[in-house]
Amino acid sequence: MATSDAPYRLYYWPMIQGRGECARLVLEDAGAPYVDVARLPDEQGGGVNAVVTAMQGNLGKGVPPFAPPILTDGDLVLSQTANICRYLGERHGLAPREQGARWQAGALALTLADLFEEAHNVHHPISGSLYYEDQTDAAARAAECFRKERLGRFLDYFGRVIAVSGGPWVLGAQATYPDLVLFQALEGLSYAFPRAYAKAVAGVPALPALRDRVASRPRIAAYLASDRRIPFNEMGIFRHYPELDAAAD
Amino acid sequence: MATSDAPYRLYYWPMIQGRGECARLVLEDAGAPYVDVARLPDEQGGGVNAVVTAMQGNLGKGVPPFAPPILTDGDLVLSQTANICRYLGERHGLAPREQGARWQAGALALTLADLFEEAHNVHHPISGSLYYEDQTDAAARAAECFRKERLGRFLDYFGRVIAVSGGPWVLGAQATYPDLVLFQALEGLSYAFPRAYAKAVAGVPALPALRDRVASRPRIAAYLASDRRIPFNEMGIFRHYPELDAAAD
Repeated sequence: MATSDAPYRLYYWPMIQGRGECARLVLEDAGAPYVDVARLPDEQGGGVNAVVTAMQGNLGKGVPPFAPPILTDGDLVLSQTANICRYLGERHGLAPREQGARWQAGALALTLADLFEEAHNVHHPISGSLYYEDQTDAAARAAECFRKERLGRFLDYFGRVIAVSGGPWVLGAQATYPDLVLFQALEGLSYAFPRAYAKAVAGVPALPALRDRVASRPRIAAYLASDRRIPFNEMGIFRHYPELDAAAD
Repeated sequence: MATSDAPYRLYYWPMIQGRGECARLVLEDAGAPYVDVARLPDEQGGGVNAVVTAMQGNLGKGVPPFAPPILTDGDLVLSQTANICRYLGERHGLAPREQGARWQAGALALTLADLFEEAHNVHHPISGSLYYEDQTDAAARAAECFRKERLGRFLDYFGRVIAVSGGPWVLGAQATYPDLVLFQALEGLSYAFPRAYAKAVAGVPALPALRDRVASRPRIAAYLASDRRIPFNEMGIFRHYPELDAAAD
């Protein structure tokens, strides 16, 4: 193992929650010491430059990362949100103990990663490299499809997962890292699509219940109340453009 | 562990390679016995209905899957392509032995999953639920962005990974499951975007070399020559629409 006693170091864009927020939530709930490197002042090695340097593969040995979030644990350099969350979850008591269930937790985190991707695609259907303002027509159509066909399907699915496990957490009696990622998805969807979210979640009461349950975990509550939690904004994955949250669906 | 002596059962759309092809390649290279369930005749429980039933969560206990591919190993039900490939790779000598490298292999498979998603988004930028023919204008714009900004970035990245590892495989001297997924990505990209692919790969000779190397592994060569390998077509992830492969980029 490449672990060490040094704190984890997370490299992610300092101005948004984005995908990095999933890693932040697992680190916070675990009470694991970490440095959110890019949120340090530039003169302490922080800022956007810290992320760019990390993407260039200068952090350690082995496979360079393709994109942030990037987590280092000693000389081990990890990327991909679902991979980072699983790694942390398994090391900090936030994953199932049974091996089969660990692979099922992995699948849940990856299905949530797909939901994040689809939510991002709503405002950037043509390309992440163009401004939203340059793809508003396509975004309006993408948003309609997302609200009508995808949002409810995802929320119903996670409601079904909780029903099958017996709840209150996605995998049953014990909270695991997919609960934290699901919390972030619900936070983001309710921010970006308040009307469509309210409608879609109305028939799945287990989801707002889980969201409240995560928010009141002591370390998460402390985190959410701190300035370490960056507010939602229109630069991240979940953006509130009222025109994409529809009228009379 | 939920493993058993029964063969693996793979549930995936029987008419396309799609994401399921990554699981097929790992199973084939491992020489692992498996049933590609939906490719059985309907009267033997195959066909599209087999996939639909699997998606309804009727295969076993635990977390129901959200979408195919779905793999069962005894009573363990697994979903998400990268998760399935990692599971199989670690059980069949197609993963690194060292724990840290296993997480890095996981990150590579997830980065390839992102590439698959972006390649699919080119022809379905608005929604997977609409026909390509109903989103051709958006697709033309998405294709231009993909060819100019993403394709080369992904290919250069994997070339860099091979350079860092020392090659000839992505993680060094030993072939692992991300090599098989990368092979499938290269196959698909060269099918869908023959002109853009040829241009992008010209400066990254390690990639066609790896592609040839995978294709000539004995079990993969036998698989590719068999009727188990479904040809590419315009229903899958990688579709050849000449108008999306550009002219004078």
